[in-house]
Amino acid sequence: MSAQYEPIESMAAELHRLPGVGPKTALRFAYFIASMPLEDVRNLSVALWEGRKAIRFCKVCGNYASGDLCSVCADPRRSNGQICVVRDPRDVAALERTHEYGGRYHVLHGTLSPMDGVGPDDINIRELVARMSTENVTEVILATNPDVEGEATASYIARLLHPMNIRCTRIAHGVPVGGDLEYTDEVTLLKALEGRREI
Amino acid sequence: MSAQYEPIESMAAELHRLPGVGPKTALRFAYFIASMPLEDVRNLSVALWEGRKAIRFCKVCGNYASGDLCSVCADPRRSNGQICVVRDPRDVAALERTHEYGGRYHVLHGTLSPMDGVGPDDINIRELVARMSTENVTEVILATNPDVEGEATASYIARLLHPMNIRCTRIAHGVPVGGDLEYTDEVTLLKALEGRREI
Repeated sequence: MSAQYEPIESMAAELHRLPGVGPKTALRFAYFIASMPLEDVRNLSVALWEGRKAIRFCKVCGNYASGDLCSVCADPRRSNGQICVVRDPRDVAALERTHEYGGRYHVLHGTLSPMDGVGPDDINIRELVARMSTENVTEVILATNPDVEGEATASYIARLLHPMNIRCTRIAHGVPVGGDLEYTDEVTLLKALEGRREI
Repeated sequence: MSAQYEPIESMAAELHRLPGVGPKTALRFAYFIASMPLEDVRNLSVALWEGRKAIRFCKVCGNYASGDLCSVCADPRRSNGQICVVRDPRDVAALERTHEYGGRYHVLHGTLSPMDGVGPDDINIRELVARMSTENVTEVILATNPDVEGEATASYIARLLHPMNIRCTRIAHGVPVGGDLEYTDEVTLLKALEGRREI
């Protein structure tokens, strides 16, 4: 019955696309939406569609933007020669929450992944290289994720920029603050040892 | 920055309404939707709005319906005199999945909850009582949840129907199949003992 009730099924089928939402959660969301006031569902539906339509990308760095430039690229104080390379706009948001980084960003919108057929031309690498000649870049901070694709992407970009005499750095790997040595995997511990510093 | 990027914020604010979706998950959904193809977001948005608009309730039992009657009430074979009283349409779906129950349903769309100001007139109790005179009811199975509100609602309905000489039953409480005695709470164990049967 009800699980084959068409309006519920069609809502659940679409909600199932969301990350981490399995068939049961999608059904739970659908039942919930079915019991929401019509006006609230209209607001939800419109917010998603209008929100998605309003998404713009910065012409320089690929970050989310309200106009042609994102708020970082539009801020002249952040033109300090540093470019931090990340995979997604959400990584920009994460780094901005530290309130410490004063340079600019470059959003790749993906990482190299030969297995998934994602090559250098499929992500914003060419645009990054172009910035080396138009901006006065002193350092490129490679802040892709510390996974296989992220490491491969960082290495690839570093090899590409070295002949141009651009200083490339990679974010540190180590034990997360508040973490526990006992539960830290060996590779991370090894990186933490290798990256040790005088105190 | 990005976490204050208006399109993401407005999507996250609405997604935050979904059950079990906190601010972080809402933001994760919003970022995901921001990266979805425009066409897919349109489908999601339309599915929610059209799905909600298509929700109809059975004129007899209050279950979800495509026409005037739900598929159970429209099926003459299910007119066996039994009415199973549940809180939500999703409870109907759960009971239908057992493929055992052959009677009809009555969906209350809520449970009595004086704390939240939900009284007998706020849920479909009057409609249930009316069915006693229009249908040939032999048994009312009270299948509200085994929580405080569900028990109170079941007791209330039983007291209401007893003077009409309607047989009322309550679903059994006990140890869930596949459950573990060790991890079963005392109240449930007590109910399981009280409800023991010859084998």
